[in-house]
Parts: sequence; structure tokens; C-alpha cells
Amino acid sequence: MDTTPSRSSPARLGTGHSTRLDPYVDRYAARTAGMTASEIRALFAVASRPEVVSLAGGMPNISGLPLDVVSNAIASLVRDQGAVAMQYGSGQGLPKLREQITDVMRLEGIEAHPDDVVVTVGSQQAVDLVTRVFCDPGDVVICEAPSYVGALGVFKSYQCEVVHAEMDASGLVPEALRQAIAAVQAAGKRVKFLYTIPNFHNPAGVTLSAPRRAEILEICRQADILILEDNPYGLLGFDSEPHRALRADSADHVIYLGSFSKTFAPGFRVGWALAPHTVREKLVLAQESATLCPPQFSQMAVSAYLAQHDWQGQIKQFREMYRERRDAMVSALADMMPGACRWNVPDGGFYVWLMLPPGVDAKKMLPRAVTARVAYVPGTAFFADGFGAGSMRLSYCYPTPERIREGVRRLAGVVEAELEVRTTFGAHLAAPELNGSNDAPGVDLT
Amino acid sequence: MDTTPSRSSPARLGTGHSTRLDPYVDRYAARTAGMTASEIRALFAVASRPEVVSLAGGMPNISGLPLDVVSNAIASLVRDQGAVAMQYGSGQGLPKLREQITDVMRLEGIEAHPDDVVVTVGSQQAVDLVTRVFCDPGDVVICEAPSYVGALGVFKSYQCEVVHAEMDASGLVPEALRQAIAAVQAAGKRVKFLYTIPNFHNPAGVTLSAPRRAEILEICRQADILILEDNPYGLLGFDSEPHRALRADSADHVIYLGSFSKTFAPGFRVGWALAPHTVREKLVLAQESATLCPPQFSQMAVSAYLAQHDWQGQIKQFREMYRERRDAMVSALADMMPGACRWNVPDGGFYVWLMLPPGVDAKKMLPRAVTARVAYVPGTAFFADGFGAGSMRLSYCYPTPERIREGVRRLAGVVEAELEVRTTFGAHLAAPELNGSNDAPGVDLT
Repeated sequence: MDTTPSRSSPARLGTGHSTRLDPYVDRYAARTAGMTASEIRALFAVASRPEVVSLAGGMPNISGLPLDVVSNAIASLVRDQGAVAMQYGSGQGLPKLREQITDVMRLEGIEAHPDDVVVTVGSQQAVDLVTRVFCDPGDVVICEAPSYVGALGVFKSYQCEVVHAEMDASGLVPEALRQAIAAVQAAGKRVKFLYTIPNFHNPAGVTLSAPRRAEILEICRQADILILEDNPYGLLGFDSEPHRALRADSADHVIYLGSFSKTFAPGFRVGWALAPHTVREKLVLAQESATLCPPQFSQMAVSAYLAQHDWQGQIKQFREMYRERRDAMVSALADMMPGACRWNVPDGGFYVWLMLPPGVDAKKMLPRAVTARVAYVPGTAFFADGFGAGSMRLSYCYPTPERIREGVRRLAGVVEAELEVRTTFGAHLAAPELNGSNDAPGVDLT
Repeated sequence: MDTTPSRSSPARLGTGHSTRLDPYVDRYAARTAGMTASEIRALFAVASRPEVVSLAGGMPNISGLPLDVVSNAIASLVRDQGAVAMQYGSGQGLPKLREQITDVMRLEGIEAHPDDVVVTVGSQQAVDLVTRVFCDPGDVVICEAPSYVGALGVFKSYQCEVVHAEMDASGLVPEALRQAIAAVQAAGKRVKFLYTIPNFHNPAGVTLSAPRRAEILEICRQADILILEDNPYGLLGFDSEPHRALRADSADHVIYLGSFSKTFAPGFRVGWALAPHTVREKLVLAQESATLCPPQFSQMAVSAYLAQHDWQGQIKQFREMYRERRDAMVSALADMMPGACRWNVPDGGFYVWLMLPPGVDAKKMLPRAVTARVAYVPGTAFFADGFGAGSMRLSYCYPTPERIREGVRRLAGVVEAELEVRTTFGAHLAAPELNGSNDAPGVDLT
């Protein structure tokens, strides 16, 4: 699941349109107030220009996929089973694919029955359907600080209240979760679920430690709070076997979300939810209402790929390629960024979370960065509450190592220029509207 | 857009599960009360058995598609543009496909810009996104009586109130629409839109006459009510050029929905919405929240098919094939059904709407029909208010003409047996719980 910059809609920016005269403005649903263009999307127009090094998007680099294998598999699929592949399918998803999905999840210690799996249009849709099933307006979802921008968008569109809980280098802080739960309960509100990305977090890059996994599970069990475990990157660790999923140790309190977007390809839009049986039934009803059924053709294509190709070998290649890019980014950061910057070294996934020197605002700096031909996502995109201005997400998944290094070089120059202006003219001129952004309950991930 | 029986989930019935102990029952969102298994779905387990003639489902018969052409087109697509086709795409949909969609709509008199088109996961998702953007709980949607079961499900899941307006052989009755609007307004509620299927209606089989089109547009313009024009079957008329779309004469008051599911194949799940510009922007935000983007691979596959194949010639073949099946059904009905039954003769699309003799209940009769190895959809599925028990939808799209005739023969036997029981034992024994179902504001379509 990701932020998916669209390279094909360069003309559409999130800003400005709200000032256009809209004759329908008085008849939209109240939820549309929470449906706004993300900060990330506003970048695509510029970040997609070839001269810009985009460290912003979360597009996987799928150039290593064996196109001949996929081409032949899909051609056979159409010739031999076309009348099935192009027909409507089940609202829950293809039984064969759901079986294969249980094989994938077994790599993370999950023993599940295919009947408890619902196929979704990417795991983004799984977040949408779970929220649809559980959340009334005003319900609370607890999220890590920071959290995935696409999930925050869903929660807003269902008029949920997001409460953030702090992370550190070992992931979500159990005590912060306890406090968040207590604060919500003290306010007389209801926590519907904890939304968490335990592995190679987007955007923070950190992974929840094994002891904390047990502790988080226990906290949620005691508080009777469901966990929505979003795990698109779990198989993309650089140095280790896959981490044991939260779901592996709690079938009743965890809804697990997976995706083929990062381990195979996002263009098929095939993700899934694994849920307790009665919840799964609701999710299927929600899926039928939303789409009748997920794309049968996509599902059969993914299923054929899994059956006919060494998909685990392909994931190993992806891991090595992303590790090389991670190395390129962190060594470039170490070589070139001003000393007051801090960042983490992720051991999987796509993202580095970078903390700027005190007083430098990533959002305000962005136009200058784009002028210098580098793009990133300001940290504020990953908070529901306006925090995060002192941080940014840097993606190393898509550009080549050389481009990553060049992008970091440009970014370092922009940050240095920012610091120079501050030194010369004082902080109030360089960033006049900074309002406590460094009080954010952010990550400390150096 | 359709009811899409899933042939691959035979084990799941809509009934019975609600009595299962559900530990999460106290935490679902209020909207889940409106998310219930449709009556249609409960049929699939039985209707999918090969010995049953299913006149229930709305699956198109795509056996005539040129599988070699599609196979080659998609194989080339992967080989030559695989890294694009399998990547994330735009939330609004592929620009090339949106251009081709404007070509398709031009056949119905619509002049539109590709920038006002949003690609959706089937047009079912378009109904979902439009409702998401416009409807707060309690808002009113006016629908024909009867109306498409999948749309009624969406409206219920968004906690809308559905108000039905009567149809006759010329489609939606303008005076009924006026009365419905006045009644809603008198009750102090707000009509968010009129949902209508002007061509070859699902399930009623009727088509809105040309004079009525102008009248319906004028009524909605005066009342300042948007029209949601759902048109999956518009190009599948048997005897005429495509009817002029409502959208062709009102760009500002109509949101038009189209689909490739009936004119090409449903397995790609590619539909679309054409909307006024500011509404389109909201729909794209809703799409991004729901799925990030519709499946890029599906879109490029459909686009390649349109570019490389005589798709209009293919639609002509579909029309001839469906006309033959329509003929088979209506002649079988005329030959075999008891004299008190009434039905319409559709001039396009997939469906015949059949009114049973007074007092015979289609829903209660269904188990006996299935025992006699024929399935249909009881009329109650197509009303939000419990009406329709005296009617049923018969689909001629999927079975062969021979099977259609055999299915009607079996159905006639079941209805005759029902009538005999009533004659012998009296109506109160044959259908003891009939409660005024023939007072329904139904269709009169003989």
C-alpha cells in the first residue's frame, strides 16, 4: 500500500481548486470535508518532471520483473481460461488465490484458512472496507506518529478522530499506546482499532521489536481493542527472516492486511484482509457493495504468476535491489547532510525518516527544494494533527543509487542554504510561521 | 453493472449467519445494519448447480469474445509496456482510456472532455463513490420502482432513505417523480439525486421514452436535483440506434455512469463516471481514498482491446445473440406460462420482469422452483421497502435459448402447481403470510 504518485495526471494539483466556484458545494456529504488532496499528490506535477530527483513517491521499482514470464502466463490465461478470467467473480475473491495468500502469510508465522481471507483492490481498499465496517463518525482510531498518509486519508473520510501514539527506534511505544487509550477513554470516546505498520514502517522506516509485539498485543487484548496490522513491506527485510506477524499470535484481535503491490506489482491492485470469521463476513458484504467483486482478471494473473514463477526468488532480488538503494541513501546522507540532521537506517522497506535541524520547516522548504530539482514528502502529511513540520520522508525505492546520491546532494544544499539564511537573518525571517512543530510527538530515529 | 452471481463461492449463503455468535457485534458501525446479504446472493449456491437453469443471474455471455485477439493484445501489452501496465496509475484513470471512453459515449450523443471522466472499479464502484460524495445518513435518493439491487445496497450502506417512483412501459412516470419529490420535500428531507436506468432497465426491462427524457430532465432541473444516469446496457438495444443519453442534453445536472462489463467483459472491472467538473474532482479524491487508483493493468487491457479490435462489431454480435435469447424467453413465456401471468418484451438488455397471478408470492415460491431446477430473482430484491413479492426478474443473458425454454417450462409448472394448491385449499394455505404485496407501486408492463 502506498502513496502512488500518478505519473499520468500531472495537470491536477490539490491546491487552488477549492477557490473555484462549485455549484454543488451545498449538497456534498459532510464527510467530504475530510476528503482533501494530500500534500503528496500536490507534488506529483513537479516530481514527475525528469530533471527532478523524486525522493517523494512510494512506487516500487518493478523493472526487474520477468516480463516474458508474465506475458506468457497471462496470454495462456486468456487463451485457456479467458471466459472465466474475464467474467464476474466472487465478492470474496478467487478461492485459488486465497489459498496462495495463506501460503504467503505462512512466511510470517500465520496459520489461516482461505475462507477468512477477503481479496481487495489493493490493501488501500482493505483499509477503506475495515473502516467502513467499524467506524461511525467520531470514533477514534489510534495510529502511530507518524502514520501512512493513505490510511489517515481514509480515517478522515469516514469522519474518524485520529489519536497518535509515539514511536521510537523500536517502533510503537507501549506506554504511549496505554496513555492514548486511557486519554480516549477518559474523554468518553471509543477506540475502534489500533492501526499499525509493524514492519519497515511507512514513513518512519522502523520495525516493532519482538518484545514490544507481545506487549502491544497484550495491551490491546486487555483493552479489548482490535488491531489493524498493515503489512505491505513485511517480506522486504534486508537482513533477516520475515518478522513474526502480530496476527500469528492473535487470531481473534487482529485484522491483517497484505498486498502484492510491493512483492510483485501494484498495477493489478490485489491486496487482501485476513479477519476473524464474522468480521470477514461483513467485509465481503462491504466489498460487494463497493465493487461487486475485485477484478477477476487481476486475481487470476497474480495467481498464475505465483504458481508459475519463483516468486520467493523474485522477492529476494527485490530485497537486494532495495538494500543497495537504502545503502546509497544512508551513505549519501552521512556524507552530505548538515550535522544537525538526524535520520534512521531502515532494515527493510522503502523509507528513511529525516529530522531537520531545529526551526527548519520541511513544508515551507519544499518549493525551494523543487527549484533545486529534488522532491520529498514533508512530515506533516503523516500526522492528522498538523505536527511533523520538522521532518520529511525520503524514499529510496524508485530512483537508481546514482540518482539517490544526486538527490541527497541537492537536498543537502537546500537545507544548508536554509540554515545560512537563518544564521544571517534570524529564524523569524527564514520560517516566520513556525508554530511549535518541533513539539510534535515525532520519532527519534537517528 | 450487475448482480454478478459468484460461481466460486457456493458455500456462502446470506441467511443463517446472523444467528452465529459474533464477538464484535457491539462495535460495528451503524451503517452495517444496512449491509445485508442480498436475496440474490442466497440463490447462488443452488443456482450454480449445473442441473438448475438459472434465470437469476446477470452474467453476460462472453463466450463470443475473440480470445486469441485479447490474448495477443495483452501479451504484447506486458512485453512492450509491462513496467507501466503493472505500476500504480492515476487515481482518475488512464488518460488514453478516458479518451476512448468519450468515443464510446459519443454513440449516445454525449460530447464530453476526458478530464471529466473518472475510471472506476466497475460502475458499481461509481455508484458507491457518488453516494459517498453526496449522501449523509438520512438523505433521500429517488429510485425507480423496481430498481437495481446493487444500487439499492449501496444506498442502504450509506444510510440513505430510498423513495421509489413508479414506472410503466415507457419508463419512469414523470408525474410519479413529481409526487415523490414533493412528498420528500413536504417531509422536510432532502433529495440528493434521482438514480435512474433509462435504457433496458434492470430489472424492469423497459426504456424511458424520448418525450419523457425531456420531461424528467426538466423536472429535475426545476427542482435542482442531480440525476445519476446508470447506463450499462445502452449499447445493447436490439432494434434501434442507441438512445440519446440524458447526459447528452444536460451536462450540469447529470452524472453519467458507464461500464465495459456488458459490452466487453466484466472481469477487468472497468467502469466510469462522467461528472460536472467540480464533482469529478471530489470523485477522484474519493477514488484515491478507496483504492489509490483503479487497476492500471485492467485499464490498459481494455484500452488495447478498444484500439485493436472492432469493438462495435463485437457489440453488434452481442446484440444479435441477446436478441435471440430474448426471443426464446418471450416465446416460451407466451407458450407455457399460465394465463394470469404478465410480462414485458424488452427491446434490449438482459431482463424480463414478470408479474405473477394475484396472490402468488415469488419469494415463497422460490424453494419450490429450485426443487424443480429453475431459479429467478424475486421482485422484493428490487425494492427498498418490501414490495415486489408478486413479481420476479428473469434473465435471458447467460443460458442458451434451449436452456431458457427448458427453464421457462419448469417455471410454468411451478406456477401452475402453486395455482392448483390455491384452488384446492384456498389462498390462505398456499401463501398464508401474503401481506398486500400486490399493492406495490410496481411496473405494469404486460
